Amino acid sequence: MAFKGVDYYGIEELLSDEEKMFRNAARGFLEKEVEPLVVNAFHKEELLNMKELAPKMGEVGMIGATIPQEYGGGGANYTQFGLLCQELERVDGALRSFVAVQSGLVMYPIWQFGTEEQKRKWLPQMASGKIIGCFGLTEPNRGSDVGGMETVAKKNGNVWVLNGAKEWISEASTADFALVYARTDEGVKAFLIPRGTEGFTQTFTDKKGAMRVGDVGTLALNDVKVPEEDVLPGSTRVKHVFACLNQARFGISWGAIGAAMSCYETALNYTKQREQFGAPIAAYQLVQRDLVNMLIEITKAQLLSYRLGRLLDAGKAKHQQISLAKKNNVEMARMCARTARSLLGANGCSYDYPPIRHMGNIEAVYTYQGTDFIHTLILGQDITGIQAFTRKL
Amino acid sequence: MAFKGVDYYGIEELLSDEEKMFRNAARGFLEKEVEPLVVNAFHKEELLNMKELAPKMGEVGMIGATIPQEYGGGGANYTQFGLLCQELERVDGALRSFVAVQSGLVMYPIWQFGTEEQKRKWLPQMASGKIIGCFGLTEPNRGSDVGGMETVAKKNGNVWVLNGAKEWISEASTADFALVYARTDEGVKAFLIPRGTEGFTQTFTDKKGAMRVGDVGTLALNDVKVPEEDVLPGSTRVKHVFACLNQARFGISWGAIGAAMSCYETALNYTKQREQFGAPIAAYQLVQRDLVNMLIEITKAQLLSYRLGRLLDAGKAKHQQISLAKKNNVEMARMCARTARSLLGANGCSYDYPPIRHMGNIEAVYTYQGTDFIHTLILGQDITGIQAFTRKL
Amino acid sequence: MAFKGVDYYGIEELLSDEEKMFRNAARGFLEKEVEPLVVNAFHKEELLNMKELAPKMGEVGMIGATIPQEYGGGGANYTQFGLLCQELERVDGALRSFVAVQSGLVMYPIWQFGTEEQKRKWLPQMASGKIIGCFGLTEPNRGSDVGGMETVAKKNGNVWVLNGAKEWISEASTADFALVYARTDEGVKAFLIPRGTEGFTQTFTDKKGAMRVGDVGTLALNDVKVPEEDVLPGSTRVKHVFACLNQARFGISWGAIGAAMSCYETALNYTKQREQFGAPIAAYQLVQRDLVNMLIEITKAQLLSYRLGRLLDAGKAKHQQISLAKKNNVEMARMCARTARSLLGANGCSYDYPPIRHMGNIEAVYTYQGTDFIHTLILGQDITGIQAFTRKL
Amino acid sequence: MAFKGVDYYGIEELLSDEEKMFRNAARGFLEKEVEPLVVNAFHKEELLNMKELAPKMGEVGMIGATIPQEYGGGGANYTQFGLLCQELERVDGALRSFVAVQSGLVMYPIWQFGTEEQKRKWLPQMASGKIIGCFGLTEPNRGSDVGGMETVAKKNGNVWVLNGAKEWISEASTADFALVYARTDEGVKAFLIPRGTEGFTQTFTDKKGAMRVGDVGTLALNDVKVPEEDVLPGSTRVKHVFACLNQARFGISWGAIGAAMSCYETALNYTKQREQFGAPIAAYQLVQRDLVNMLIEITKAQLLSYRLGRLLDAGKAKHQQISLAKKNNVEMARMCARTARSLLGANGCSYDYPPIRHMGNIEAVYTYQGTDFIHTLILGQDITGIQAFTRKL
Repeated sequence: MAFKGVDYYGIEELLSDEEKMFRNAARGFLEKEVEPLVVNAFHKEELLNMKELAPKMGEVGMIGATIPQEYGGGGANYTQFGLLCQELERVDGALRSFVAVQSGLVMYPIWQFGTEEQKRKWLPQMASGKIIGCFGLTEPNRGSDVGGMETVAKKNGNVWVLNGAKEWISEASTADFALVYARTDEGVKAFLIPRGTEGFTQTFTDKKGAMRVGDVGTLALNDVKVPEEDVLPGSTRVKHVFACLNQARFGISWGAIGAAMSCYETALNYTKQREQFGAPIAAYQLVQRDLVNMLIEITKAQLLSYRLGRLLDAGKAKHQQISLAKKNNVEMARMCARTARSLLGANGCSYDYPPIRHMGNIEAVYTYQGTDFIHTLILGQDITGIQAFTRKL
Repeated sequence: MAFKGVDYYGIEELLSDEEKMFRNAARGFLEKEVEPLVVNAFHKEELLNMKELAPKMGEVGMIGATIPQEYGGGGANYTQFGLLCQELERVDGALRSFVAVQSGLVMYPIWQFGTEEQKRKWLPQMASGKIIGCFGLTEPNRGSDVGGMETVAKKNGNVWVLNGAKEWISEASTADFALVYARTDEGVKAFLIPRGTEGFTQTFTDKKGAMRVGDVGTLALNDVKVPEEDVLPGSTRVKHVFACLNQARFGISWGAIGAAMSCYETALNYTKQREQFGAPIAAYQLVQRDLVNMLIEITKAQLLSYRLGRLLDAGKAKHQQISLAKKNNVEMARMCARTARSLLGANGCSYDYPPIRHMGNIEAVYTYQGTDFIHTLILGQDITGIQAFTRKL
Repeated sequence: MAFKGVDYYGIEELLSDEEKMFRNAARGFLEKEVEPLVVNAFHKEELLNMKELAPKMGEVGMIGATIPQEYGGGGANYTQFGLLCQELERVDGALRSFVAVQSGLVMYPIWQFGTEEQKRKWLPQMASGKIIGCFGLTEPNRGSDVGGMETVAKKNGNVWVLNGAKEWISEASTADFALVYARTDEGVKAFLIPRGTEGFTQTFTDKKGAMRVGDVGTLALNDVKVPEEDVLPGSTRVKHVFACLNQARFGISWGAIGAAMSCYETALNYTKQREQFGAPIAAYQLVQRDLVNMLIEITKAQLLSYRLGRLLDAGKAKHQQISLAKKNNVEMARMCARTARSLLGANGCSYDYPPIRHMGNIEAVYTYQGTDFIHTLILGQDITGIQAFTRKL
Repeated sequence: MAFKGVDYYGIEELLSDEEKMFRNAARGFLEKEVEPLVVNAFHKEELLNMKELAPKMGEVGMIGATIPQEYGGGGANYTQFGLLCQELERVDGALRSFVAVQSGLVMYPIWQFGTEEQKRKWLPQMASGKIIGCFGLTEPNRGSDVGGMETVAKKNGNVWVLNGAKEWISEASTADFALVYARTDEGVKAFLIPRGTEGFTQTFTDKKGAMRVGDVGTLALNDVKVPEEDVLPGSTRVKHVFACLNQARFGISWGAIGAAMSCYETALNYTKQREQFGAPIAAYQLVQRDLVNMLIEITKAQLLSYRLGRLLDAGKAKHQQISLAKKNNVEMARMCARTARSLLGANGCSYDYPPIRHMGNIEAVYTYQGTDFIHTLILGQDITGIQAFTRKL
């Protein structure tokens, strides 16, 4: 059975049977269980009930896909994780966000930098979707400027005391616990803080124009006490933060393809059926040009992400290569959402068609995990050898 | 007192005192009475209460500005109408839509093509905002293809019987009456149909990603009977439809400037305050580039609309010139909304800042009153002498 | 030894040793023997002496690379041919044009559609560079509209009589013979016409802004007589014309990468050395953004052409996939040439730096072998199922 | 008689009769006397003979148009000067360059900052075209970074001794004298240095891809002695340099319109005549889109330059407003040249059609008198209050 998706350069034949089956299973589940809930939820900014959905997603292997099976993960390769992200965001970016956070930003650092006890305690339950985590890195005044982190942890005997605030945190109000970064005398460290801890407040941020089906919010830390056993021992360097981001950014590069596919396919079907001036509008050159531009950009994005997955699987990818795919593919999806929306005319303004919803979501994706500017400068530094993030040389 | 708005090429000094006063009054009213209501309404798709707002707007001269004073209008020139549209859309596109429809698409054709009785009956009450009208032209299968209109009116004695449907009609569910176009044996005619007429159904269309504070909906006509006295006598030709559209399109060209101003000013203020990596982000070249691009495009759009207003006032504007300004300025505002939103980073995803709301709205504006493609082809036909709307030569 | 070229996504490791060696040999030859001649020749529109160069190129295997060795060719795969085109156009597009015409547009159809005698007669001598052919398809009034061909061949006994004209023919004035397409009662046929044949005139076209080191000209046919033995028997359908174009278009997609590489590397080196306002200009965000955009677009183009080569080698590529790569990569190179030229400031206006020369050349490439519009519509037809080349549905 | 040019928004009626007559006279002269010489000269990089042409241009009032009549100038307003620049560049950018340098960069500073003797000595002869001057500001290592000027003048009794080099100087090898800027202990000063002065070398720079009909070259200063009477007394501050640049940049903004007009008109005529697939190519949507984009961008550029001229005439223009028009209009012309060239297909590669020549020229214009980046940052500084030229805050 041919893959029902955009595949103009035969990438399907480069995938293993296992990879294809994994992707197809994910698509089947999502189309049946999740897609029908999305439009209304987005319209009203009513969150999908992840407490209900996550265990189902865990059951079909959507969580912790790349984590080893001994910790409840799927032991999958990066290409599979990418294909999963594609299918999730094809339905809605907030779903991909959820999985990227749970798997890439919380499970991954626990697995990489945690103690054996921490791994045993958290990973299996997270993989099963019974426990939801969030990733507390971004701060109100320090979006991209991670180096300027203001949240502080001070050691008091065997206990750390945290103060600060985190903003734009996916799953903030839903999470059963948060992995929170704070500055210490020993460098940046990651702390695991359960819901309900004294002084720890989780709040939902409403009135958003993007990701309206997903939980986003703030974490406030007011003399929050964390015992030493809930500190990740291996996470004392900012570099480790970036290791997590690489997971998420790679997933985003595939998710963007999913959103773009959804937009392109919607537009293609629509323009072939919609008639104006005596012909389907797909018969007009201006419409064909828009469709073709989408096709070309999606095809190139696919080749980028496919190649990147293989490099990651081989342990050869460098983070700047991931920046390239994140930056390019999100900009690509942004263009596709806008183009598809306009091809749908007035119907393109309705949430009954996916493009305008993706158009909102992709703005969040364009910004988080490194804005377009940040990735430009990461790449710029790599090729010129000169950093241009700051004004100081 | 200097004008608080974007004015890089000194357009302020080209305006008369009257024009400036009119604009300033509109701005004052809108900032005080309407702006505080918008964010929540947009977020929840709860319509502004036009039944309450319209009479206030009528009082300050915002409705029927260009209609002669003897019919309750303002007797203003086109530049004033343009400036009004700018101020309305600076707050929200749905407000400009409301005024454009009420004034340009309903009052204008009644004034131009109506009988003296019709004018006396409708215009003063509409100008005072006590009565709201809507404009029933667009059909489900015939967006841009007005020539293919499917709504039909058949004469039965002294009464016309209408059947058909209209879609994406601003003020559809709120309007006290509708001006509806239908195909007859004598050509296209315009019918005035009061709310509550048997067989006439007005429905709200929800789940939109654009213009969420404004009423948009459908009109269904099921054997609706209209007496001869409620038919506009002068409207038997499609050409007259276009006369109305010219009013609306000119207003849109100014409204787009208002939305773009709002986005640009928000981004400028934000980037001068937001610090990252040791400096306000406005100190970085990539940010300055985005701000400058917005400034340049807004400045050019202003010169277009200003010149167009003067041509209209002199009775010299041709409709293709209006197409140029509509097409250009809406595309310009679309770019500004997108750019400003991204400059705001994660905060740009929140409705607490205007850009992402304008970003949604402008998609509707990009589509209605002639899509970008339609205006391209209107201009293309004008300069080449060859129509390229249809496939037939 | 690392490849000295743009390779941000590790394509080098996907190439076989044979492929790399072939490319490196080509680069070595071109840098030593040809590159030093190019600037002055371009400046003065003095053609490279292909009568001298072609035999040298033949010797190092640059001609007929994909033709079987039994006919003097190299028996190489498509990826090798692509890499060769990259290296040729890295130096100058006219060199890639020469090889693409000789190998893809003349040798390939003789090999595919010729008789055994024709193959034996022409192919080995062409492969050695001793004989140069040209491809007479394009006509003065029929650029993209091959179906409207006006050159006619009429049979008179055992001899065909040709009348017509061909324009913008690479190697027109230099070629030892031309493969000329003409309309006959039996369909389009290809004729082999030696230099000096009565009624056959070969003229150089001067005053060009592109490809100034390469021969381009016209062929005039005035009652030219061609014996049956010099007609390709298998070429009676327009489809065969397209088979030849596929060769050339695939080569162009790689050639464009070569031109873009040259531009990018020139700009990167220049901006790292050139100081302004106290820093190398590569330290400025606006400059880094331009460099990064080039890098991203080149990387994607490489992945397209690499994948396409493998599909061609596997016999699976369809011509629309080739259209995608031709269209995308040439537009990409056009952007890179323009961007690199501007990064070089005033020096970018001098032919002493490659970008402004590539900028001229790429305009020819943008147009020939299918303009950007034509490839848009080829792809549009493929995805929508509706042709939009003509106005007739 | 209607103006034969692009005028979609009725700018013609905003011009005075004097302004129109002046423009029409310039056009008449240029079309008759100069245009026929351009193609061959460009192709071969053979300079137009300005020694012959300049006196004729002086006779019809093309030189020193805005200089008062008492010094031989035309006493024209800025709009006239702009219209003249438009007509000059419509034929070739090098002609506009010549006039901009002669009038704006040499005559203007002498008039503004010179002594009465200097004015009497140079201005009338320059206005008549009998003497040609050049403007020596740009240095090899200091393109945009005027503050870092390396040419030095040291006072030795009553004589200044200059050492240094200037590059990319229009009219360098032709000029009868040069106005050269050098750093002194008293700040930057301007020196008038006649041809043939000992140690002063004027050299032509060949192998350019832009402005091939115009003289561009280098000035070398090797212990060049300049008496005090040949120093401009009023030019001791860098600010004065910018006053000259304002003249030139304003002229460029109009010149770019002229080049764009030429491209647009060529493309419009060509596409209406050229047939493909059964119709003139102007009948196709993709072609109409390109034509319309050019029209829109030209119209906006005209409104910018027209408004700017009136602001200058009223003494109200600030230099950042000029930056906006220079930056915008040159980018606009660049797009038009590229677009028109591609619409001409293969013929667009020939210098027999103007677009590809303008395409080369405009690259020089994009760079000189402030690159696109420099004007972006000038505007960025103006609106944000923060300079971003250097890395130091």
